[in-house]
Amino acid sequence: MLDRGFQYGDGLFETIRVVAGHPQYWQQHINRLMTGCEQLKIPFTEIDSLQNEAKKLCGQVDDGVLKITITRGVGGRGYAINHSLDANRVLAIFPAPHYPDECWTAGIVARVCQTRLGINPALAGIKHLNRLEQVMARTEWNDSSIREGLMMDAHDNIIEGTMTNVFSVRDNELMTPNLSRCGVKGVMREHVTEMATNEGHVVREIDLTLDDLYQSDELFVCNSLIGIWPVKQLETQCFTIGPISQHLQKVLNGKVYAT
Amino acid sequence: MLDRGFQYGDGLFETIRVVAGHPQYWQQHINRLMTGCEQLKIPFTEIDSLQNEAKKLCGQVDDGVLKITITRGVGGRGYAINHSLDANRVLAIFPAPHYPDECWTAGIVARVCQTRLGINPALAGIKHLNRLEQVMARTEWNDSSIREGLMMDAHDNIIEGTMTNVFSVRDNELMTPNLSRCGVKGVMREHVTEMATNEGHVVREIDLTLDDLYQSDELFVCNSLIGIWPVKQLETQCFTIGPISQHLQKVLNGKVYAT
Repeated sequence: MLDRGFQYGDGLFETIRVVAGHPQYWQQHINRLMTGCEQLKIPFTEIDSLQNEAKKLCGQVDDGVLKITITRGVGGRGYAINHSLDANRVLAIFPAPHYPDECWTAGIVARVCQTRLGINPALAGIKHLNRLEQVMARTEWNDSSIREGLMMDAHDNIIEGTMTNVFSVRDNELMTPNLSRCGVKGVMREHVTEMATNEGHVVREIDLTLDDLYQSDELFVCNSLIGIWPVKQLETQCFTIGPISQHLQKVLNGKVYAT
Repeated sequence: MLDRGFQYGDGLFETIRVVAGHPQYWQQHINRLMTGCEQLKIPFTEIDSLQNEAKKLCGQVDDGVLKITITRGVGGRGYAINHSLDANRVLAIFPAPHYPDECWTAGIVARVCQTRLGINPALAGIKHLNRLEQVMARTEWNDSSIREGLMMDAHDNIIEGTMTNVFSVRDNELMTPNLSRCGVKGVMREHVTEMATNEGHVVREIDLTLDDLYQSDELFVCNSLIGIWPVKQLETQCFTIGPISQHLQKVLNGKVYAT
């Protein structure tokens, strides 16, 4: 009750895929967590303890999700921060999400959400605990054949999916939304950018509109739990699953991410 | 840990002044809470139980603050909502905040925050648990002689203080920011509007810039814990404490709110 995570969403989280006892992309997740702590001025330093606890928790897990939550700690009422607060951490293991194979092989159907992302550069990029926008966007549909909803900011820029980042492929170049004003910089987004660059593709972080997405040769979404899902349909527009998406899936090793 | 309030800030809160065993403006607080539940689609209906619990908790309190938190309930990982969730409620009593008498009598010094409020009509007006913007704004200063910081949206409109609403008086009219795109519609803001209207003043909810505030004959901030604080200085601009602010303080009964 008095934890500022509960009072104000004053904290951060990571959801990490665990395979055969090992948290995947551990260092990238920790890097983002620490960037978030710095951005929110949360003085969390106990990385070594966190790593030991995570290892212990993940050791027996064949296939699951480790969720790490860091909050500013237990404080009284009021927004002002007592700088002597000790950050709190909570670790928990969840079952791996299960989706049909066709999400990876045939692609998914996505929609465009009405709920917009508020513009706030001070909170952009990090995975903080203020997630009502995603919650509200996810309430917009119940049709389980629609796997993801894309969200725009107030200026009609496409920013991300409710739980994924998005990439548009056009003329062999990859484009992904600029996340300097809102959105979460996903660990898989970073990894896809790295993989694609290594494969000789240009990857650009730019402002993208819905019309830009409709012009894509290939479209895909990604996160660190699912890897890469090609988008076969966005609203009424259909896409083919192209060679670049498929190749990146292979590089990523589809076996880890296919259920 | 699994409460969605903690996971995503998926809920609402009220902070209610308690005097001589009685929660002040109870009905207005409950109205806002229920508006918030409706806006967030949280099916909370146990108002009677909540009222009984609140009465019981407040009974022995001479002067304090009742904080009510309602969350969407305990859910698994993921933004999607299981519609069978039962909302959770947490009630807690805190000591009344104590400020020097001069905050009411001589007015306060306020500043303008760098942190902006994200624009999101779907979340505007209600007192939800996503409060990182206020937390970050409140980290901007440590000088205890500055009692409040005013916040703007991305379009340079003044919206509110970190913990108060703001009123500008000019030519005997009251103006307070339009909160349809962001901000919290305070219970005291509503009450001040009602009082001023009853006293024959025009009260307008409009878009206000910082320049508009600097042109004020009188400027004040308000919330349901402190009542009305005149602003004697905003950044380098000074204001006199005018007759309308003072009169509204009297109507509100300064005695309840002065410490």
